[in-house]
This record gives sequence, C-alpha cells and structure tokens, in this order.
Amino acid sequence: MATPNVSHSVTLRVELTNQPGTLGRLTTAIGEAGGNILGVDLVEVDAATIVRDITVLSGDPEHAERIREAAEGVPGVHVRSLVDRVFRLHAGGKIEVRGKTPIQNRDDLSMAYTPGVARVSLAIAQRPSLVHRYTIKSNSVAVVTDGTAVLGLGAIGPHASLPVMEGKAQLFKEFAGIDAFPVPITAPTTEALIEAIAALEPAFGGINLEDIAAPRCFEVEAALTSRLDIPVFHDDQHGTAVVVLAALRNACRVVDKKLEELTVVIAGAGAAGVATAKILDHAGVGRIIVADRRGAIFSGREEFTGEKAWLAEHTNPERRMGSVGEALAGADVFIGVSGPGVITAEDVRTMGTNPIVFALANPDPEVSPESLEGIAAVVATGRSDYPNQINNVLCFPGIFRGALDAHAMVITEGMKLVAAEAIAAQVTDDELSPSTIIPSVFNRSVAPAVAEAVMREAIREGVVRHAIDD
Amino acid sequence: MATPNVSHSVTLRVELTNQPGTLGRLTTAIGEAGGNILGVDLVEVDAATIVRDITVLSGDPEHAERIREAAEGVPGVHVRSLVDRVFRLHAGGKIEVRGKTPIQNRDDLSMAYTPGVARVSLAIAQRPSLVHRYTIKSNSVAVVTDGTAVLGLGAIGPHASLPVMEGKAQLFKEFAGIDAFPVPITAPTTEALIEAIAALEPAFGGINLEDIAAPRCFEVEAALTSRLDIPVFHDDQHGTAVVVLAALRNACRVVDKKLEELTVVIAGAGAAGVATAKILDHAGVGRIIVADRRGAIFSGREEFTGEKAWLAEHTNPERRMGSVGEALAGADVFIGVSGPGVITAEDVRTMGTNPIVFALANPDPEVSPESLEGIAAVVATGRSDYPNQINNVLCFPGIFRGALDAHAMVITEGMKLVAAEAIAAQVTDDELSPSTIIPSVFNRSVAPAVAEAVMREAIREGVVRHAIDD
Repeated sequence: MATPNVSHSVTLRVELTNQPGTLGRLTTAIGEAGGNILGVDLVEVDAATIVRDITVLSGDPEHAERIREAAEGVPGVHVRSLVDRVFRLHAGGKIEVRGKTPIQNRDDLSMAYTPGVARVSLAIAQRPSLVHRYTIKSNSVAVVTDGTAVLGLGAIGPHASLPVMEGKAQLFKEFAGIDAFPVPITAPTTEALIEAIAALEPAFGGINLEDIAAPRCFEVEAALTSRLDIPVFHDDQHGTAVVVLAALRNACRVVDKKLEELTVVIAGAGAAGVATAKILDHAGVGRIIVADRRGAIFSGREEFTGEKAWLAEHTNPERRMGSVGEALAGADVFIGVSGPGVITAEDVRTMGTNPIVFALANPDPEVSPESLEGIAAVVATGRSDYPNQINNVLCFPGIFRGALDAHAMVITEGMKLVAAEAIAAQVTDDELSPSTIIPSVFNRSVAPAVAEAVMREAIREGVVRHAIDD
Repeated sequence: MATPNVSHSVTLRVELTNQPGTLGRLTTAIGEAGGNILGVDLVEVDAATIVRDITVLSGDPEHAERIREAAEGVPGVHVRSLVDRVFRLHAGGKIEVRGKTPIQNRDDLSMAYTPGVARVSLAIAQRPSLVHRYTIKSNSVAVVTDGTAVLGLGAIGPHASLPVMEGKAQLFKEFAGIDAFPVPITAPTTEALIEAIAALEPAFGGINLEDIAAPRCFEVEAALTSRLDIPVFHDDQHGTAVVVLAALRNACRVVDKKLEELTVVIAGAGAAGVATAKILDHAGVGRIIVADRRGAIFSGREEFTGEKAWLAEHTNPERRMGSVGEALAGADVFIGVSGPGVITAEDVRTMGTNPIVFALANPDPEVSPESLEGIAAVVATGRSDYPNQINNVLCFPGIFRGALDAHAMVITEGMKLVAAEAIAAQVTDDELSPSTIIPSVFNRSVAPAVAEAVMREAIREGVVRHAIDD
C-alpha cells in the first residue's frame, strides 16, 4: 500500500452520539487504521446526534474501506457514506464553457448573435486573418489525443483519456489564461487521426498533441505542422525535452560544468527520449548516447527507420555499444525516460565526477533516489514527493501563451530553447542548490517568463502571421 | 439604410470643452444626423475638458461615419475614437473555457491531474459508461458546421462561421447550462465531414449540426445518427420545425381550428422545409403541400431523389400542381422557409378563412407583414421586430438539456413533438392572442419545460443509455 495521500482521500459522513469523547474515539480509531485525517467539518447537530464530515487520506481504495470499517466499529458512531474525493471532483467534468458576457435581453442577443454576428462573419469571410482577432481562435488550444499512450496507463482509448485532457485544459487556463478544450479522437489509423485533427483547425489557435504513442506521434506532428498554419506541439516530446534542458542547465550551474563538455546518456527512445536528444543536440551538448531496449543506438547496429535513424546518424559518433549501464561509464549525465530499474546505483558509481541523474519514469524511477545519496551530485525525478520534479506544467502553458501572443504559425527549435532558458532562469543563484535546480510548478512567474521569451523569439525568427491591419 | 439599431451601434469617445451647453449641442448634432443615443457615460474630467463615451445606434457603418463627422463639427467637441460595439464584443471571442475548481497547490493538482486522474481514467477504461458521469461528456455539445449555409450568408466557410457557432455556444450555456463548444470543420467532401464529426464523439454528449447546406445536411445527420450513440440534431431542420409546430398549435388555438383539418402550404424544400413537413406529418396535420423553386412537389413531377422523394411520396396526395401562390387557394396555413417575395398579399386573400401566415425568410420575409393587415388572422416571422418571432432558441437548449438529462442516445420524432407541445404550452390562455402565439425567447420557463418533457419522453420510449450503476 502507498503512503496515505490526497489522490486517495475520502470523506466519511458520520453520525456521532452527542456525548463528549465520541469524536476522540473516532479519530483515534481512524488513526489506528492508518488513516491520515485532513479535516473535520460540522454538517448538522441536534440534541442526540452530531453529523460530521471527516476527510481522510488513505493509501488505496481497500485501505479506505478498512478505515470505514474501523469508524463503524466505534461505539456511538454510524458511517452514513464514504465518498472518494477524486471521483467527486470529476463528477460532471472538471471544465466548463461560458459566455464572457450574459445574453439577457434582445440587445445582447442582437449583438452576440443574429443579426449583429453576421457583420463579424462577413468581415472574416472577406479578410480571413480577422478570425485571429474576433473569435476564440485568438486564445484557444485543442488538447488532442488518440488515447494510445495515456499517462503510464497505455492505450486506454480516447474516452478514458478524457479526464486527463480536461485536467490539461484546466492547467492551460490556470497558468496561462488559455481557453483549451479536450479533443480525444477516435481514429483507427494514423492517416485518419491526421485528417480528423486537421479538420478541427478553424476554431483553434494551437494544437497540443498529448499521449499519442510513438512512432505514430512523430508522423502526426510532422504532417500537421506542414499542413496547418497554427502551432502544433506534442507535449510528451517537447514539453518534457524543454523542462529537461532547463533542469540540465541548472544542474550544470550546480556542478560547474558546461553543456558542451557533457556526455549524456538517455535511456528510452520513445517520444520523450527522441525529443530530449534533439533539444540537447540543438543546445550544444557535447556527446549524446541514446539507448532503447536493445541498448545503445549507433549507426550500423541495425537498419533503423524514422526517428531512430535520426538518432543513429546524429548521436553516439563513437558508436559505443552495450547496455545503458555500460554506456554510463564515465558519463556526466543520465536521463531516464524509460521504466523502473533500468540502471542501478552501481552503474551511477561508474559515471564521471559529480554525476547528474534525471530518473523520470513515473511512478517508479529508473533508479531509486534514496540509493543515490552520496553517489550522485544532483538527482531529479518526475515525482512531486522528491526534490527537482521535472513537470511539463512548467513549459506548455507559457510556450503556447507566447506562441499565441506572437501570432506564431509554428513552434520552432529556437522557441523551445529560449523556453528552457527562461524556465532555468527562474531559479536564482541564491535559490540554486542540488535540490533546487527547477522552479516549483506553482511558481507563477514561470509561465509569463516563458511566454515573453517565446514571443520575442518567434518575432525574431519571423515565424509569425502578418500583422492584422485594421 | 436600415432603422438605427443595436447591431450597428457605436461608441464615440469625445472630448468636450468644459462649458455649459457643449453636451447639448453635441447630442443635438448626433440626433440631427439620424443617430439614436443609447447612453452617455463620463470617462474623465478636468478643469478644461470633459471626456465622455456616447453610445449611438446607427443604421449602417456609413451612417456611423456621418454621425462621427457631425459630432466632430460641433464647436468645442473633438472625437477621440469611434468603436463598433459589435466588433468590440467579439474581440478575442465570446466564450471561454474554465476549470470548475482552481488548481493552486499540489493537492489540487494531484486530484485533478496526476496522479489522481489516473484512477478516474482507469475506471472509465474498465467501465466505459462512466465517461458519462465523470467527464464533461455528461454536459457537453459540439456545435458543428462546415460553413456551407451560414445564416443567410451562404457558403462563407468554417472560419467565418466561427462567430455564429460561438454565439450558439453562449446560448446553450445561458438557457440550458450546457457546455457547448464551437467546432467549424474543414471538410472537402460529405464523407470527410462525417468522418471528422464521428471522430470527435468521445468528448461530447451531443452533436448540434448547424448551417450545413441541403442536401448534404440530410446525409450527414443520417450517417452520424446511425454511427454514434449520442444525440445528433441538425438545428436548422429540427429546431425550426419544432418551433413552427409550437407556433402552429397556438395559432390553431387562436383561430379555433384543429391540426387534423388544416391544409398547409410550405414554401421551400431545403433543410427547414423538409423537416417542417415531416414534423407536421407526424403531428397529424391534414394536408401538406411543399413547393420548391419549380412549384408544388408531387409524385410524378420528376424523378426525385433523397428527401424530395420522401416529400413526393408522403405529401400532396391530390397531386396539386402549380406555383406556391396557386397552391395557397383555399389553404389554411402558409409556412415560408424560402426567400423574400415568394407570395403576395393577393395570394393570401385566396386562402381559406382566418389565414395563418408564417413568413420566416430572414431578414426579408416571403411577404411583408404590413401588407397582410386585415387579411391574415395570424402572422409570424423570423424577425425580432415583429410579433411572433419563430426563433430556434426556444428549442435547442431545452431539447439538448432533456436529452442529456435522460442519457438519451438519439432525439426521436416523439421527443421533438413533446418539445413543440411544451413550447406552445408556455403561452397561457390569458396571454394567447394573434400577436402572441409563441413565448418570448427570453421566457426562462421555456427551456426547463422543454427539457422536462423531452427527458420524460426519451425515458418513455426507452431510447436512453442503460443506467450507470455504481
């Protein structure tokens, strides 16, 4: 069982005999059952009975059930109901669509709808660029998936992915004021997926691809980027890559190394691994070795296609062979975007001085951070319960905000590089330490800083839509 | 030039010399230029100057420009800016997407997003019907168009249609609390349109088709209805048909006739005409004659296909021939869903006693209501500036609300019939009159009454999804 946590929290509605000591016995019983009480609220009270809501962190649903039984066993206590807080939060969905202004009378209606709206539609028909000024397209992003690689859950399908996409839409609004809408898509083939997404373009100012399995994700992103004149960004690739680069820049500040001098070993050649290798290559990292399940990728290992062919051509020029662990000997940095147990603390011991280890597999890292104490100089994970969480939330809201503000038609490698620099720069010299190489996801200065840098870079590169003149 | 109206209203920001009489001279000049002042607001004031916003109804943009010039010509007045209020309202879009709860700390994040959300996604993967409980699908409607028949503007394309679809989404929320999102689609063929809409289904509890040209609209609706297990409703067809039937029921109350006894002539065999003929047929109207551009449709007139073949088979059993005007002789009801000037007041004179005339072409009716004074017993139009406006807003929010609440998989003919009855019933006997056969679009009791009736009918017919058990 996991440590009791908020994502397994429950609310017990309990009736207590109105006598001193009952609540004390109840909270003791819950504590003895391993429940962690988050709060106690009064619901109603009369002479005989007090009704309270007790919110408790549990470790899993079976544990929650044991807590309920323990509460029920206390004399003077009856449990009316047990509500799972995560499911309650999701009931009816987590997002809503609202008009910015009410429509309460005929004047409102004739301005927002017919006949007034016809003037705006006609203006767009005559000057198409006006759609970016007078509609939600100026501020909207589609959060699109086919449900083939959802979180760590695999190909659970578009319907089951919807809560994740809704959560992402919430984060877009919360951190960047962007109106994002979840669009999980039913598509039997890659071609069908591309066509369905391309067809959606009119209402959206950007497309955030999400949780699409490799190698399909590469093909979909490439096809859409060439067909559409709005930014298309596969977050699992580029969001991860940008935040990894930001963290790596600051890890280098900590250990006083330069990107150009580093040897980096990446475990995992899926969406995140490929994009990370590419961004590190663009950022000027010295040597990059990427390993897939068969070990280090090098030119000639086999007949590679697609992105792995790119890796074979552009990384590992010394054609080092062997397992990830073997490749680590003498390396400066390990970046894991693969799965649990891929390397050991002993492998890390073979690395060069002051090893940097990013073990990003979720929920179980490639190597346990605890085992690296005294071995690695800097450790980062994908988890919130260790220091240095590599979280895409640091990237995607700001990068889309910047792209929308610039009227960018694409998100370039240059825009990703400046995004990483902006994230890294949010950690001041004073704050910087082995356990603080990346800002908190709740640092509200990150998204605006990323947006500003990305907007400037888009304009500098000239990848923006021609200004909409009046 | 049209009568000055709110959909051509402008706000003039003016600097006035701070001397008595300046505002009076300004408002007089605006009035003499034909502007209708809606409001005067103070912006700022100092010893020498007062800045005010003057909101003025104009007839068209050229008229607004003349009003600006008239204001500029007043001594002591300088016009800083003229803002078109409709375009200002549309700047940045009219709708937004918001989280229902904030994400401000790690607990919020771990419940709405990872790791908590994974439990909800897994639950849906294991029990697919839960998507209707724990996601926005429980309350969402896609407002879909291909931009081929937008308002009266024609095939202006999906981008230019977006302001209209946003307005519709606003109305869904305002009148029925539904989270609707505009999805204008780029689709070169009917098949591509069907595929693109079907692919969208995971996030939506219903599909509202909008402004799709006939005959494509019939094929799209039929294909989607058979493929998807959520309601698909082409509002231009069925929304219009439902409100027409509601109005016709009440017009019958006014003239004391029965539906079964009526002879109804419908001008227009497009989306609205076909659907209106069908609903009247289902409602038991006595005789129906539909005319297209070539006159009355009857079996044998030509080799009909698609919906016109249905009309030829099911309407006009006496095979009456000739123009719409000729068909009107002796008829009880004229329903125009065609274009201006299709019939004359003289044609209406040839109708039976107490003629009922619904001239719904917008903005110019099939026959001018003024010309029917003393001739027709009841007149309705599609316009808000005449009595008895036939407006789909009376139908679509409530019918989707009812369908969503019932977990209906389809919107049946029966559900449309009870929707029409519910709308009609909102006009009490006391209110009923030749100029009040239909409730105001701002009558807030309509949508709940429609929803209730539609929900009950869906359950009665058994077209609802199996209950989601816990």
